[in-house]
Amino acid sequence: SDGKFSTVLARTVLQQCVYARLQVKPPEEETPAEWVEIERGMVIYICFFKGATEDIIQKMVNTLLEVKLCEADSGKRMSVLELPGSVLIVPQATLGGKAKGRSMQYHGNIGKEEGLQLYTSFVSQCEKQLSSSSKCTEAGVAVKHGTYGNRQVLKLDTNGPYTHMFEF
Amino acid sequence: SDGKFSTVLARTVLQQCVYARLQVKPPEEETPAEWVEIERGMVIYICFFKGATEDIIQKMVNTLLEVKLCEADSGKRMSVLELPGSVLIVPQATLGGKAKGRSMQYHGNIGKEEGLQLYTSFVSQCEKQLSSSSKCTEAGVAVKHGTYGNRQVLKLDTNGPYTHMFEF
Repeated sequence: SDGKFSTVLARTVLQQCVYARLQVKPPEEETPAEWVEIERGMVIYICFFKGATEDIIQKMVNTLLEVKLCEADSGKRMSVLELPGSVLIVPQATLGGKAKGRSMQYHGNIGKEEGLQLYTSFVSQCEKQLSSSSKCTEAGVAVKHGTYGNRQVLKLDTNGPYTHMFEF
Repeated sequence: SDGKFSTVLARTVLQQCVYARLQVKPPEEETPAEWVEIERGMVIYICFFKGATEDIIQKMVNTLLEVKLCEADSGKRMSVLELPGSVLIVPQATLGGKAKGRSMQYHGNIGKEEGLQLYTSFVSQCEKQLSSSSKCTEAGVAVKHGTYGNRQVLKLDTNGPYTHMFEF
């Protein structure tokens, strides 16, 4: 808040959950839909803007996984890595929307190919961080994620979502 | 995005839902918890910052209820008033958080009494807008809302939340 204009390269919204379920493959004629699910942990909705590059991914992952957003049983706040909790990553291009009159525009959003690349990198960096924490691996928590470009059919159960927004 | 610094007075996050249920009164010894619920419509998470006044409420309500965020059966986007859909308003002070190191700070958030006043006004303006639309009253859609200051125990079922963020 120093008054300086700075370009936003990525926007994330975070919600705490006790259970979340996300469709990763829509149903087809012969096959039912496929889903991933997590129990206690955090949902990360993520959107990249034009100009975003690989350079920002590590900082994003560190910030989001290490900031104290989660409520422990004691009531104390801790990071999702400390909890430890699982992480569900949801690609969410709508987060880049701006109202122009009554319509939404998404001109600032990154292109599909670049977006997929950054999303994939973000997911794998999250996986790497969780799997390098013995607390996380022992507790059996995991990173799950949606399919980039698909409709994100989501079911969320919370004990208070404690919605946060972070821009990078 | 003209590079000019402008103070944010309110932040909202919107998600589309097919069903949402929110606790409005926690359970007590003899009485079970109380809940409100909506079917198809939109969840509005809302947070006010220091400096926010009654002046911004009408514009916020008009924007959020009239912008085309909802997906009709045809696939076309329309406003929640046009859909018509219900609205669930969730007070969400965490939306005002800023990371300082690994901790969250909420120094920009409005005080409790002023916040409650603006929240109450926002809810009643939303109710007024919905009830003045014959399409809404005929369809039986409604505005439901959480209790300001309480833990917001939420269950959300979506067909794609299409998360949007609006600042005022």
